[in-house]
Amino acid sequence: MSGTLYGLGTGPGDPELITVKALRLLQAAPVLAYPAPEEGESLARAIVAEHLPGGQTEIVLRMPMVAARFPAQEVYDWAAEEIGGHLEAGRDVAVLCEGDPFFYGSFMYLFGRMAERFPVEVVPGVSSLTACAAVLGAPLAARNDVLTVVPAPLDEADLAARLRGVEAAAVIKVGRHLQKVRKVLTELELLDRARYVERATMGSQRILPLDSLDEANAPYFSMILVHSRGEAWA
Amino acid sequence: MSGTLYGLGTGPGDPELITVKALRLLQAAPVLAYPAPEEGESLARAIVAEHLPGGQTEIVLRMPMVAARFPAQEVYDWAAEEIGGHLEAGRDVAVLCEGDPFFYGSFMYLFGRMAERFPVEVVPGVSSLTACAAVLGAPLAARNDVLTVVPAPLDEADLAARLRGVEAAAVIKVGRHLQKVRKVLTELELLDRARYVERATMGSQRILPLDSLDEANAPYFSMILVHSRGEAWA
Repeated sequence: MSGTLYGLGTGPGDPELITVKALRLLQAAPVLAYPAPEEGESLARAIVAEHLPGGQTEIVLRMPMVAARFPAQEVYDWAAEEIGGHLEAGRDVAVLCEGDPFFYGSFMYLFGRMAERFPVEVVPGVSSLTACAAVLGAPLAARNDVLTVVPAPLDEADLAARLRGVEAAAVIKVGRHLQKVRKVLTELELLDRARYVERATMGSQRILPLDSLDEANAPYFSMILVHSRGEAWA
Repeated sequence: MSGTLYGLGTGPGDPELITVKALRLLQAAPVLAYPAPEEGESLARAIVAEHLPGGQTEIVLRMPMVAARFPAQEVYDWAAEEIGGHLEAGRDVAVLCEGDPFFYGSFMYLFGRMAERFPVEVVPGVSSLTACAAVLGAPLAARNDVLTVVPAPLDEADLAARLRGVEAAAVIKVGRHLQKVRKVLTELELLDRARYVERATMGSQRILPLDSLDEANAPYFSMILVHSRGEAWA
């Protein structure tokens, strides 16, 4: 009997925002796997660190720091082989995924490599999308609003086309695209409707109106929420 | 000292998909409030029923069964007064919200009435959006996909305009709008890219390709996910 691969959403950052189900599976799994930067700490592991019972085997997917559009496929090939070995030996493997595994998550790269060969279960998590709305104290979308989620790496014309006339929008993966996004929102006359959230629910969380943010770049874990009509509940 | 109003996301239906934080606050609150149909059981309360310690005061927001576009404001006025009385007396009140409180949730109607007068904390939950992707075993959105969330009550022309050319889309609140949504997706040649999920993560969950569903109506808790490029991870 092969083990099961679990894709566990850890939630957005506050360790208490993990689900009861993900916590149970996390603590029971003999093997954990998670992404980490080339050097330094894994955010996904840091989120769950206080919940770990100790004694688990850990597979660290060190992601090369390249400006490539997609993460290095070689790391996922290697990890799929490592993880596959444990699953074949009957050991469950829990992959830690910041936020939700299937909301713009890198888990899909493992999922695509493993799902046809092994049992896989995805445990959804609280995504950064709803976490940002919660810490802002403003509904993300309401009634019959259309909600548009737009990745900031899109080029300027594409961003403008996607954000023109939106009711509610979330611009994700802001990072080094901050200036471009601000320019587009200014041209669309949405700047004063836009709020910036950095590291929602983490200790280092920061929230401010986008028009008062004067930095050139933002961290990867930042998001801009826009409500074209102002407060959605008004 | 007044009490705090907590908007607690219960998650999409599986009682284990509540967060550790919402569970803690739920069990500690002396007063609970939740929506329910005019007659019968509250889904939000049913999701958390197994976690309740007993002995809590419960405020039931019975929503009138009208075809009105927005729920009856009178019920929220009444509930705000009831809840406000407890808060003024120093008792915390936990409002149970299916999924996430700020993702198309009715919590905003209470939030709008209470947030200026009392301390309010919103605890985000796993939304139906990522729960549906998890049970489908398919990424909701990936890489630089734009994700569009479209409420099914929009009229046919509006639905078509919003869904034309989408990369990834979720049509929510399907209910009695099923035929209209299917017609629009067929005309946009997206029918074979669309999958239907009913009551994700609940015992009564149902998943099928939209083109094999032959009912006239769907339950309110149903969603259609579309990936225009097929499998997002491929």
